[in-house]
Amino acid sequence: MHVVVNVAVSADGKLSSRNREQIEISGQDDFARVDRLRAESDAVMVGIGTVLSDDPSLSIDRPRLRERRRDRGDPPQPARVIADSEIRIPHDSTVLDETAKTFLLASEAASEGSLNQMQSLGARVITAGDNRVDLAVAFEQLDAAGVDQLLVEGGGEIIFSLFESGLVDELSVFVGPLVIGGRGAPTLADGEGFVSDFPELVLTDVRRVDDGAVLRYECG
Amino acid sequence: MHVVVNVAVSADGKLSSRNREQIEISGQDDFARVDRLRAESDAVMVGIGTVLSDDPSLSIDRPRLRERRRDRGDPPQPARVIADSEIRIPHDSTVLDETAKTFLLASEAASEGSLNQMQSLGARVITAGDNRVDLAVAFEQLDAAGVDQLLVEGGGEIIFSLFESGLVDELSVFVGPLVIGGRGAPTLADGEGFVSDFPELVLTDVRRVDDGAVLRYECG
Repeated sequence: MHVVVNVAVSADGKLSSRNREQIEISGQDDFARVDRLRAESDAVMVGIGTVLSDDPSLSIDRPRLRERRRDRGDPPQPARVIADSEIRIPHDSTVLDETAKTFLLASEAASEGSLNQMQSLGARVITAGDNRVDLAVAFEQLDAAGVDQLLVEGGGEIIFSLFESGLVDELSVFVGPLVIGGRGAPTLADGEGFVSDFPELVLTDVRRVDDGAVLRYECG
Repeated sequence: MHVVVNVAVSADGKLSSRNREQIEISGQDDFARVDRLRAESDAVMVGIGTVLSDDPSLSIDRPRLRERRRDRGDPPQPARVIADSEIRIPHDSTVLDETAKTFLLASEAASEGSLNQMQSLGARVITAGDNRVDLAVAFEQLDAAGVDQLLVEGGGEIIFSLFESGLVDELSVFVGPLVIGGRGAPTLADGEGFVSDFPELVLTDVRRVDDGAVLRYECG
């Protein structure tokens, strides 16, 4: 499975403010770029933190991109993948609606009751790991379920875990022209952080998009 | 006074790891760029946190750049400016050596004893603000002392304070090809962070340097 991470950050590297409120960092050209990335992907993933703070749809906006997917025999929308160790996802979350398939990646710590509830809501639950999702094992199951390309859109906790597990193949970052600041504001890669053996990237493209820049990397 | 902020960050926006250890983020071409920036500046500033963790020299490396300063009647090295509200700077810090003038920006909370000690070590102490340095007032005094261009090299606390006070004119960021990660790792702008009225920048230049990219901004 090919894993692409894509996020928008402020000039000082923040995904949002310390309040976790969504901030408009990019513009129309970057939205179009993300729409194309989603259209090229079999599934789009976020962590439960992002679902709780933003209630995203993770869906393709432009009808033409959905048509093209249909033409090549794919479902019009990519599947949604939510990393949610203890299954805290609210039942009315947009990612649980019927516009696309939804995978929940849970750990053994999730209760039997919440597992059954999610299955009755139509979600497919993949269980891996004791207290936190074992992402490497869960990704093998996503791969077996036909997900060849996975787009990860955040947040910083899940992205750090992916780098920690060596699961990221590509990273693209839109850097917007504003300063958010804050010791407590989420960044592209949070978690515990590395103190040695920092994952190395190869910068493959740098370009202006909207009023900011997009940096693209391949990951070793 | 014209204030330029320049830092090197990882692809995920960190200045260093959670341990505050210096990490080689950029390479020879970026070092040369920073050397030129220092040579164009009358003074180079960092916060006390950076002095305590890195003991930087803040000096110009290349003899040719020092010669050029001499030729135009400037001292060979720019002055050093340390924001140090309570005067915690160790007496054997490299920035207190005799290669250049040193300004300490302190608050009224600094003890008379430490003020006198610093003056006897040759540092010029500027006092502004009750418990934290009032940067706007201190900068007026730096300006009056002949500092026309000030280069600020970090860390994240002082840079956030500068944006908060509207004192930044230009920002340049080298983004290196590695991931540091960490909720607790310092970023370009830490502090409390903004939750509204985010400072807006204008991206003026994007280019590849070494294995990374440099983004340059003008600040409103």
